[in-house]
Order: sequence, then C-alpha cells, then structure tokens
Amino acid sequence: MENSGRVVERVAGTTGGKMVLLVADGLGGLPHPETGLTEAETARTPNLDALASAGVSGLHVPVARGITPGSGPAHMALFGYDPVRYEIGRGVLEALGIDFDLRDGDVAVRMNFATIDAEGKITDRRAGRIPTEKCVELSERLNTIRLPGVELFVKPVKEHRAVLVVRGPGLVGGLNDTDPQATGVPPNGLRAEDKAQEHTVEVLNAFLGAAFELLKSEPRANALTMRGIASLDKPPSFQKRFKVRAAAIAGYPMYRGVAGLVGMEVLPQAGDNDELVRLLRESYDDFDFFFVHYKKTDSTGEDGDFDAKVAATEAFDELAGRVDEVGPDVLLVTGDHSTPSMLASHSWHPVPVLLRAESARVDGVTSFGESSMLAGGLGMIRATDILPIMLAHAGRLAKFGA
Amino acid sequence: MENSGRVVERVAGTTGGKMVLLVADGLGGLPHPETGLTEAETARTPNLDALASAGVSGLHVPVARGITPGSGPAHMALFGYDPVRYEIGRGVLEALGIDFDLRDGDVAVRMNFATIDAEGKITDRRAGRIPTEKCVELSERLNTIRLPGVELFVKPVKEHRAVLVVRGPGLVGGLNDTDPQATGVPPNGLRAEDKAQEHTVEVLNAFLGAAFELLKSEPRANALTMRGIASLDKPPSFQKRFKVRAAAIAGYPMYRGVAGLVGMEVLPQAGDNDELVRLLRESYDDFDFFFVHYKKTDSTGEDGDFDAKVAATEAFDELAGRVDEVGPDVLLVTGDHSTPSMLASHSWHPVPVLLRAESARVDGVTSFGESSMLAGGLGMIRATDILPIMLAHAGRLAKFGA
Repeated sequence: MENSGRVVERVAGTTGGKMVLLVADGLGGLPHPETGLTEAETARTPNLDALASAGVSGLHVPVARGITPGSGPAHMALFGYDPVRYEIGRGVLEALGIDFDLRDGDVAVRMNFATIDAEGKITDRRAGRIPTEKCVELSERLNTIRLPGVELFVKPVKEHRAVLVVRGPGLVGGLNDTDPQATGVPPNGLRAEDKAQEHTVEVLNAFLGAAFELLKSEPRANALTMRGIASLDKPPSFQKRFKVRAAAIAGYPMYRGVAGLVGMEVLPQAGDNDELVRLLRESYDDFDFFFVHYKKTDSTGEDGDFDAKVAATEAFDELAGRVDEVGPDVLLVTGDHSTPSMLASHSWHPVPVLLRAESARVDGVTSFGESSMLAGGLGMIRATDILPIMLAHAGRLAKFGA
Repeated sequence: MENSGRVVERVAGTTGGKMVLLVADGLGGLPHPETGLTEAETARTPNLDALASAGVSGLHVPVARGITPGSGPAHMALFGYDPVRYEIGRGVLEALGIDFDLRDGDVAVRMNFATIDAEGKITDRRAGRIPTEKCVELSERLNTIRLPGVELFVKPVKEHRAVLVVRGPGLVGGLNDTDPQATGVPPNGLRAEDKAQEHTVEVLNAFLGAAFELLKSEPRANALTMRGIASLDKPPSFQKRFKVRAAAIAGYPMYRGVAGLVGMEVLPQAGDNDELVRLLRESYDDFDFFFVHYKKTDSTGEDGDFDAKVAATEAFDELAGRVDEVGPDVLLVTGDHSTPSMLASHSWHPVPVLLRAESARVDGVTSFGESSMLAGGLGMIRATDILPIMLAHAGRLAKFGA
C-alpha cells in the first residue's frame, strides 16, 4: 500500500480535470430481514441509478477486512492515506471535533469530569452526566490554570466531556489513560514509559494537581480523568502529495477537522443539501478537488432506524444529482464505512463506490446498491485506491516507468 | 506482495509441466461509444473464446489501482517481480531497447543531442531532430572518448536520441537530469547529492567536457543533455527464484531486454506469428517456461485506431490458437497493461487474463473480453499473482507448511 502510495506521489501532475468525492457517511447497510434489501436498495435513487448506469461500480474495504473504522481512519483512507500509518489519536479527533485549531506538536487529551469519594476512589465516571452548561463553567475555570513553558487550553465538549490541549516544546502523546474504566478505584497515575514521555507526564500531573484543587468543592464534578492522550503528527499535505488544490465542504466539525488536518481548504460550515451545493458552485473555479460530506446516512444508521436511513439515502440521491449537474470531470460517490441500521453502529462491511468519468470502463451495473455493485467493473478495492483512481480518470497521473 | 513472493521461492520445485505466458501488449481497452464494446469484445476471437470456455478467467491490475505502467514495470510484474521494488531506470530501459548487453553495475544514460547558442543556452532541445544517420555519425564520434578507470559506450537510438553506458567500479545511478526541459537556459549541472555519487558525477562531467569539444563545430547538434541516469541493479534471477528454464520469444528489443534482465534465455528476434510459433516449437523441449510477446495490440492502441486494434486482436487470436496447439500444460493469456484506442495511450484499467490448465476451476465465462471476464473465477488479481498461479497449475509448487 505504501509502495503504491509513493508511486502516486511520483507520477501526480498539476494539471487535469476537476474531481468531486461525494461521501455519504455510513452509507453501507445490511438487508432488512423482511425484504432482503438494504437501506440503499430500498431507497428510491433515480440519480444514483443513472450514475451507476453511466459509470463503473464496485465496493471498497475501508481499512481491512473485518475492521470497523472510526470516522478518522475511514476518512484518512478515502483521502488516500494509509489509515494505520497515519492514525489520528483520540484526543486529537476530539479536539478536531470541536473545531479547535490544532498545531503540529500539540498534545490533545479527552477528559471526563468524574466524582470521587473522600478516599479518592471514583464513584461516578461521568459526574452524573452534568449538564453541558456546567461543563462550560468548569472548563472555563480550568482554563485559568497556568504552567511554565506551555500553553493550556481547556474546552467543553458536551455533558461531562471536555478537551485539554497542551502546546509547547518536547511534548509527546501515547501516554496511558488515567480513566480506570471502573468505579471503586482511584484514577490511574500517569506513567512515563521512556525518557521522552517524562516532560509530558510532569506537565499533565501539574495540570491535574491544579485542576483537582479548583474542582474539590464541586458536589459532583470534583475530579477528572484523562483518555486518548495524543500528539498531533501532521500527515504530509494532500496538496503536496497529489498536486491538487482541494476543498472540503461539510457540516460537521470532525470531518472538517480531518480534511483540514491533511491540508484541504475547509470551506464554511454547510447545514443542508442547498448549502453544500451552493458552496460547491461558488468555489468551483478555485479548486481541482472537492470533498463533499453528507452526514445523515450515518446518524440514522446509528439510531438503528431503517426507514430513516432509507429516507436519508433518498435525500443523498437528490444531492448526488445536483452535484453531478455541476459537471465535474470525475464524480466518485461512496461512503466512508457502513453503518447498518440492523447493527445501529459502524461496521466492517464493504461500501458501495461508483465512478462517473469519460474514461470509465462502463460496466453492466444499472442500480445503486450493495448487491448490484458486487458485479461492477471496479471490483472490490481498498479505500486507499479511490484517490489514485480518481486522479487517473482526471488525467492527472503520468506513466510510471518507461 | 513480497511476502507471497518469498513463499513462492521457498516452495518452487524443479519438476512439473510446461508453461506458456502469452502476452498481447496493451491488450485491455475501453468501449467504443457507439457500440459499448471494447476492442477485444468487438474482435472475432474464436480461439480465445474457446480457451475462456475451457479455462478460468479474470482481470489483473498491473502495478496498482490508477497507476498507468510503462512497459518495463508492466513486464516485471508479469514476471512475478514487484515492479516498484525492482524499478528499471529510464537509461537502463533505453539501453535494453537497443539490445545493448548491459552488465550488473553499468550506468546507462539517455542522451539528447541539442543546440546551444554562443552563451551556452539551449535553443533547441532536439537539435532540430537531426536524421538518424547523423545521430549514428555523432555517436561514433563520441564513442572514441576515453576516460581513465571506466569503459564508455555511446550508441545511437533514433533522430536526436542516443544512449551512453559507463562501465567500471563505484558507479551509481539516480543523478539529476542535465536536460532542463526548457529552452533559453543552459543545461543543468550534475550535482552529487551524497558522497557515493561524487565519482559518477566526475566521470560524467569529464565525458560531457570531451563530448562538447567534439560537437562544438556542429551546426545543430553542438551540445547534448542527459536524462534518466540509472544503474543496472540486476533483479534476482527468474530461474533461481522459480526453478524453471525460461525462454523469451519477442520481436521488440525492449521486451527482449527486460526478459534478459531477469535471466531468461532470449531467443532470436521473431517478426510475425509464424516466427513466434516456429521458435516456440523448435525450442519447446529445451525450456519449461516460455514468455511469448505480441506487440500490435499496443501499437494500434497507441495510434488511437480502434479498428486496427480490433484487427490486431483477431491476429492475436490466431496466434493464441496456434500456441495452444503446441500443447503446453499451462497456457496463460493476458496483456501487460491496457492501451485503449479511445485514449491512444497506455492506461491504468485492469487487463483480461485467462488460464487454460487441467487443474483450472473452470468458470462460466465463454467469451474473451473485459466485461465477461469480470465474472471469472480468478477475480481481480495483481499482475504479480500470475506467475505463482501458473507455477501452481504446472504442479511446480510444493505445500507451504506441514
């Protein structure tokens, strides 16, 4: 995978057609037991069916067979990055998810407010799910902590969840969690596993000391735990690797964050299909590559609501038709992973992928869906193959070797 | 890829059936807009259809998804070598293309005769495309240059193109091009990027000094540029890796060169189907494995001539029938890459592959073509999988592990 990735970088040129990568989050599904049809197969999708007829289809494996990806790895793979090599730590994803402007070398930490007893043992790992307003108040209080040699940022997320970002020289990620994932025991201490981690452990211990002091009189949120301590290790830039000016159009901070992480220009937040299409049209002349993200196929799948996911897929079909009308030379429609309503969660199942381009070797597939696209001309590909395929059809890749 | 390659080497035995790898260069195509049929699907191919019916089919990906391979990488992959790891430098391919007998450690350079003005700036990067006879004369003149510690060979190619081979200890490839790919500027100087390159830079600079002296009174070809400076890093031998006596039957120097590079015995140049078949029959008892190369499917595709590629495919069908009659235990028919007439160039699209062998798990495919073979029993494979599959069906691979 890395070999072919390096080949793409070597042969990528700066001229060629315009591309749109249209992603329906959690697109793949599982058959309804009564009908034997998945959400996508149940939905009325005239635009996607027409695109499938005019193009070439297949399925993609997001990370590896059997592996259920989170949103971070799934999108890194769609963007052409090996999601295992360019793993995004949980703390970093949380910070991206609240639109925090992370810089290279920052260490980000997911924090939970918690309740401890007089002996320091955890009695509630979520501080009774304090309301978000309380989380905001406590985060602002902790945000006053100052430590020598580093900058500290404490930001509220939701209910008992907050994010800490530490900025300064010599910080590293990969530390153990202090959250013991159990009650009746105190939080774990932070341990430096090697010399490189010692400074970061000292800084975080100093922060924890000051934070526990500021929280000690709280009835419920009188403590906190840390998880997913991760440093931001910026991947090589998308523009530099693939020689395209790339823009991201999305409504949710996490996807905007991952796109920004690889150096895409993140356009203003888009709320609905109208806004997604308007942003695409307005910025169409300024970029070569557009990542357009549609969310509802995932959230309805996560809710386990088959009918709602069918409706979300139909709304996505409407979006696909309008994006196609904008007229990119290469349109690739896919999902980042599957979120079958029957599982009410992300899953490892392969994801439909369809390409519309002049140089497509058009196959016999005429309808959009997991079963029909099994017979498609793309076959079963890896998610990391998608970007090279798009670049090839946009005429942006030179020959490898003479 | 390399892991499975190593497994093949470990389990390969010296006895088993005879194999023919029959390659139609640039075989894969794209549908004609009026008929929806590719060149191979349009062609009348009774022999290939019969082989598809009797055997098992699929498609192969030459290097990686989206990557358009040159002839060098595409053939290395067909021969079972990772084409990225065993990359053949441009200078080396040029030298192989004129049938030069390269040795391990030789450094080969593609040279262009060029025109410079009084200030040394390039005014014509191709010296007005001097006739080939002039190129021969100038190459012979440069071939008289002698330098201490190295052997030098200057060979004409065509028009303004020539090849320099330097033989001697301590030479390395990977140097920068002196061709600036522009006019109005002087040729680039050679730069040693590390200590290992210094000696080669000195040798090539001394050659350039002597060459410019010998060319200075020429009206047009009064200078030259260098490109693709590459050393020959011989891949492990085919015979040693796969335990077969292998022969190459081809009409064009480059394919003969790549086959020779991996240690195949290169049989006399064959001009047409009659000669290809005669050489196969005459040498049939002396080898276990034959690589037979057919060129016209590529050259007609490169010309963008759909009908001519259809005709070339029909002539290839005739060749396939005659090769089959010779009776190899394993016959594998494929291309090295696609060259769709619609693109008039090599492309990244997967390539039909069909295997006829007694142990083939015969599938339902009954016609030769990109669409029909999508449903074949081999599925979508990598080009480097082809050789292990052939060896297996020839009964030449022992069990891996107890």
